[in-house]
Amino acid sequence: MRNIQIIISYRGTSYCGWQVQPNGVTIQEVIIRAIKELTGETVNLTGSGRTDAGVHALGQSANFFTASTIPPEVWYRALNTRLPVDIRVIRSRECPPDFHSRYNTIGKSYLYKILESPVASPFLADLAFHITRTLDWGAMEEAAAGFLGEHDFSAFMASGSAIKSTVRTITDISFIKRGELSEITFTGNGFLYNMVRIMMGTLYEVGYGRLKPQDIKAIIAGKDRNKAGVTAPAHGLYLKEVYY
Amino acid sequence: MRNIQIIISYRGTSYCGWQVQPNGVTIQEVIIRAIKELTGETVNLTGSGRTDAGVHALGQSANFFTASTIPPEVWYRALNTRLPVDIRVIRSRECPPDFHSRYNTIGKSYLYKILESPVASPFLADLAFHITRTLDWGAMEEAAAGFLGEHDFSAFMASGSAIKSTVRTITDISFIKRGELSEITFTGNGFLYNMVRIMMGTLYEVGYGRLKPQDIKAIIAGKDRNKAGVTAPAHGLYLKEVYY
Repeated sequence: MRNIQIIISYRGTSYCGWQVQPNGVTIQEVIIRAIKELTGETVNLTGSGRTDAGVHALGQSANFFTASTIPPEVWYRALNTRLPVDIRVIRSRECPPDFHSRYNTIGKSYLYKILESPVASPFLADLAFHITRTLDWGAMEEAAAGFLGEHDFSAFMASGSAIKSTVRTITDISFIKRGELSEITFTGNGFLYNMVRIMMGTLYEVGYGRLKPQDIKAIIAGKDRNKAGVTAPAHGLYLKEVYY
Repeated sequence: MRNIQIIISYRGTSYCGWQVQPNGVTIQEVIIRAIKELTGETVNLTGSGRTDAGVHALGQSANFFTASTIPPEVWYRALNTRLPVDIRVIRSRECPPDFHSRYNTIGKSYLYKILESPVASPFLADLAFHITRTLDWGAMEEAAAGFLGEHDFSAFMASGSAIKSTVRTITDISFIKRGELSEITFTGNGFLYNMVRIMMGTLYEVGYGRLKPQDIKAIIAGKDRNKAGVTAPAHGLYLKEVYY
């Protein structure tokens, strides 16, 4: 059996997230079906992690074992002809047998897109968080620096998550502004459930003045989800890259 | 009666073009319906020109007469609450009574988006012309220069159009490349039916080597639609701006 890794980009709008579930169509399920169409095998497709309904990906990583003799670098094209246009496999390669898309992850980056404009864009309705307020980007960048480093991020985790450790290291938060459209990239060794969206919602509240940049340290130290900002909408979030 | 001008951005994907027609929902019709919801009036909404099914707009211009006392600058917000997310009015203003969105046009610019990549993008399926060949952008820019100036563009008009003059002046064609995504902006005093898409299809054929940059002059001079390139797909085209 060969171990094939695929890198996938998807528009999450029409899906109930990555992970197979009974209530709706998921990205994982659609890819498993495409592999079955191609090889007849029902594979176990391991993603680097879940993404929520409406969340997009530029570079999700997943792997599966197959007896097929399709050359590793041909997989991405063969699958794309069997996938809907909102899911594209952008690369494929053969990995060592012990490569595991989730366990071997050493870091991830997520991108969050914000459209700061009095009027929404007809092209970005499901692709960016539309904000009509005017944001203080200087204050947001200052606040973002407060997240850097190793911290217990319990205050930035959706309640109800069962997890061993809530300590994570954020290595970089970078801002790109192109007119009304901004991108904030969060890079770290891992993220708790909804952590990027809650960090983003907190930065947003700094941006419009409900919170101050210096509040971040205290919110982290307080370990209380209620002290952090809102959960920013799923449709502004993109899983950008998975590091191994 | 006041004469209100609105500037509209739309994603054309779900519409049968701008102009009201019996076979499907059009952008003009949806806006007329929103104005009726707001004021009770069925207005005559004059656009700067038609756009085909699937073509988008960043700045279509239209005007209508109304007895409503809604302040001119409030129109865009009032309409947006009654419009679907893929149609947004981005500005509104009161015009002199003799302003006419079509007759007063002195020029227009159109943008064409090209994704040059082995793999399609899940985010751009309906928003850019996806090309898997490698294009020679130097040759395309050289060819584009051949379109500049005043010419009889009969070779670049869809057959079957009835029109007085086929002479138009192209004042600028500019290229922007951002990685795999390129934008070509065509500016002129007016465009014949399908002219931008045929110019674009011709540049594309220069890009992959079927035509040479120096062929453009001869194609224009020949006035034969069959000598020009293919009609590039509607979904890569955006009406960018209308000049008055």
